[in-house]
Amino acid sequence: MRKLPESVAGLGPLRKHEATGRTSGTSKLLSGIDAAISACGLKNGDTISFHHHLRNGDAVLNTVVAALARRGLKDLHLAVSSIFPVHAPLVDHIRNGTVTRISASFIAGPVGEAVSRGALHQPVILRSHGGRARALDTGDLPVDVAFVAASAADELGNLSGRIGHSPFGTMGYPLADVESARHVVAVTDSVVPYPAVPIDIPQHKVDFVAPVDSIGDAAGIASGTTRPAADSVSLGIAERTAAVIAASGLLVEGFSFQTGAGGISLATAAAVGQEMTQRGISGSFASGGITGFHVEMLRAGLFRNLMDVQCFDLDAVRSYQSDPRHQSMSAAAYAGPHVGGAVVDRLSAVVLGAAEVDLDFNVNVTTRADGLIIGGAGGHSDTAQGARLTLITTRLTAAGHAKIVPEVGTLTTPGETVDAVITEAGIAVNPLREDLRDRLETAGLPVLSIQDMQARASEAASHPPARRSTGRVVAVSEYRDGSVTDVIRQVEED
Amino acid sequence: MRKLPESVAGLGPLRKHEATGRTSGTSKLLSGIDAAISACGLKNGDTISFHHHLRNGDAVLNTVVAALARRGLKDLHLAVSSIFPVHAPLVDHIRNGTVTRISASFIAGPVGEAVSRGALHQPVILRSHGGRARALDTGDLPVDVAFVAASAADELGNLSGRIGHSPFGTMGYPLADVESARHVVAVTDSVVPYPAVPIDIPQHKVDFVAPVDSIGDAAGIASGTTRPAADSVSLGIAERTAAVIAASGLLVEGFSFQTGAGGISLATAAAVGQEMTQRGISGSFASGGITGFHVEMLRAGLFRNLMDVQCFDLDAVRSYQSDPRHQSMSAAAYAGPHVGGAVVDRLSAVVLGAAEVDLDFNVNVTTRADGLIIGGAGGHSDTAQGARLTLITTRLTAAGHAKIVPEVGTLTTPGETVDAVITEAGIAVNPLREDLRDRLETAGLPVLSIQDMQARASEAASHPPARRSTGRVVAVSEYRDGSVTDVIRQVEED
Repeated sequence: MRKLPESVAGLGPLRKHEATGRTSGTSKLLSGIDAAISACGLKNGDTISFHHHLRNGDAVLNTVVAALARRGLKDLHLAVSSIFPVHAPLVDHIRNGTVTRISASFIAGPVGEAVSRGALHQPVILRSHGGRARALDTGDLPVDVAFVAASAADELGNLSGRIGHSPFGTMGYPLADVESARHVVAVTDSVVPYPAVPIDIPQHKVDFVAPVDSIGDAAGIASGTTRPAADSVSLGIAERTAAVIAASGLLVEGFSFQTGAGGISLATAAAVGQEMTQRGISGSFASGGITGFHVEMLRAGLFRNLMDVQCFDLDAVRSYQSDPRHQSMSAAAYAGPHVGGAVVDRLSAVVLGAAEVDLDFNVNVTTRADGLIIGGAGGHSDTAQGARLTLITTRLTAAGHAKIVPEVGTLTTPGETVDAVITEAGIAVNPLREDLRDRLETAGLPVLSIQDMQARASEAASHPPARRSTGRVVAVSEYRDGSVTDVIRQVEED
Repeated sequence: MRKLPESVAGLGPLRKHEATGRTSGTSKLLSGIDAAISACGLKNGDTISFHHHLRNGDAVLNTVVAALARRGLKDLHLAVSSIFPVHAPLVDHIRNGTVTRISASFIAGPVGEAVSRGALHQPVILRSHGGRARALDTGDLPVDVAFVAASAADELGNLSGRIGHSPFGTMGYPLADVESARHVVAVTDSVVPYPAVPIDIPQHKVDFVAPVDSIGDAAGIASGTTRPAADSVSLGIAERTAAVIAASGLLVEGFSFQTGAGGISLATAAAVGQEMTQRGISGSFASGGITGFHVEMLRAGLFRNLMDVQCFDLDAVRSYQSDPRHQSMSAAAYAGPHVGGAVVDRLSAVVLGAAEVDLDFNVNVTTRADGLIIGGAGGHSDTAQGARLTLITTRLTAAGHAKIVPEVGTLTTPGETVDAVITEAGIAVNPLREDLRDRLETAGLPVLSIQDMQARASEAASHPPARRSTGRVVAVSEYRDGSVTDVIRQVEED
């Protein structure tokens, strides 16, 4: 051993090196989920997180929660980015006490109904995508174990969403989870030879790799919300929305754009693209959940880049696999309100859907007319606050219910961040945006007051206005900054 | 305002949402370095970090430290990944008290000499690349402001090393700094339209963007250490080294490989490639600082991937710009001893240089025979510990000094992590690796004892063995885990 002084002036006592051996051939590969649960020391009451990049094709959440239930774990807090109909088995795990708390950005399907009916004693916390990233980063949402579905992983935990049996594309949501989770477990059905290039989450962020038979069905990615509208009413709204953007003064070189995944929003993307082509405009980026429509716009030269937090369909996955202009982004970069400027803050325009809009331009994308939870903010309130122009598109009615209402059932996105609402009845401009109303009127577009629009919706509705529940609070809707925009109350069985 | 309950059972008091306005058009772009210094509130005694991806072409460290000196800041701690001859102006800033502490992984040129001569009162801490990443992550090296040179940045702080005026490639070292630094300032001479795709460091990791006239000269990337050997003695050692790898049993399908940036190491890469071709072997990855040699091996199909912490020349930069098989990695993923398995831990073989090797196989890459600091561990001790086969290549003498010595002047890499030393005199195998010695002898390779090798070096040397300094400690050499392998003492003027 080398002779060293006991201490050094300016540094104090020295910790002398002692032989430590070699570190060759380390591996994080375990036998499966059970081994990972043991390795993390998961216990009753812990918080576990999941992402929803496999959307309605995801098998990982169900597989892991079933394993936790088999081990008799109780009182777990499920911190998931989104819950889909495929996660219906979770209802049983709520009933048997395995899961007693849920945080999510979006809940659709049987779990949403079960929560609305009061299955959980603890209120669900619904956060926007950016709000969830903020909560993870600030410690408001401490995660014990993040289970990260990966379409491929190597033995040291490099994760890819681009290779393996079921590639699903970018990994924007878990990129936020792995930054703060106490343990990170990769779950994959494709353990590939080291290194799993192209890497979406690097090995130093991952503690264990748990192989499973199947992470799910990548075909399930293109689920419900991502079909473009085809009916004439929706297409009319989409064309009108494109006309609003055209008249707004924002459709110039460098234009940036996001649409929600709703049918009208996607149809609007096509119409905006046509207008850009006519004007010879080249945009900077399209962002969000990315679809084949956005990929076509990229390829047509309408945008320089796609900023992709999640691939919404397999065309988007294929583009991300092969096109370096198709850029991944984390949920924090996408929409975090705490990062000094997120991608959403650079949007020229965003086109979003709505379950309901009210006279204050508040938007509900969380509950249905009957009060049941059918979604959540996702990126809705994030993009609405960040974009220069926030447009809400919707039909006047759905299933006989008015969608323009005196007061929304749940306030998801504050009206102060909404510039206009576009329906088949015309365009209602937020009084905060007189400049926009003037532009639209000059362009000859059909502007009407939100009051008139609400009256038209009320006339067109076949159902009377819904009575709001007065039951106990089963969920709260958090804004990006963690403040509460609304509470959601229990709905009794019909 | 929405009427909400004051509190909710299970959640407690509600923080109700209040109008917060829009966040459109946020920017992190400041007027320059001075504005960034002010924005970060930098004060006397703070720690500032820099990376060395522009190597001997870097202008950012000098520009920023000059700005700090002009503002009269004192007693700063410079936590830089490496210091090159181009950073000579730093010597003045040490003398004038602007910088009073230095941490680095490698120090070459006038700053190394000044430190050796006692310019700093506080001992320098020399850490390996992996050790530096560990120290950043664990809080042993808290950084107040990380100044991150970027070849391009956008207004929200997305950074790229692949576009702009002086692309320098991957950004492996600052990827570690931005994870923990209190403030992150991007320094660029190319502010590009949003978004700066392809992104190497994403916007949510960056606080401010400071434009400068020039970040330096990317041509300086291919500086001193990256020239391949051309003389016959060095080429002979390289061929012998390749023969050792060939005989080791490790040169099989999936072989992974790293070479240092020294001349013999690079020549070895070519010889190993030829052997792989002859055997029809396809390797998994080559890692480290990446050169054009490695790129050629990738293109020839010898490796599936390059794992690149830093581009060592412009051929590597061009490859990283265009080839998705050329994967970036952070210093933590590359060599962190704290990440449960780093890239170095998956290496089949590493070929490294040496200033001195001793009878215990300890290696010195920190000081010259006269005791002056001329380098530091860099990735030397990291890869030596991680690789299955660690080979040290060196000539017997340099500038008349023996390089195989009874005891190294500075112990940088412990001998227990070194498997063999290869010189023009033959191959000395570590007694810990009898299995390797047997294989080499079976292959007819010229094996000799390290004692014999040292005697041969001593005979070939024209200078007598150096007398070690007994002056005060001016630096310590830390191992990956933070323990101290050696101290470096002050050298008096000749």
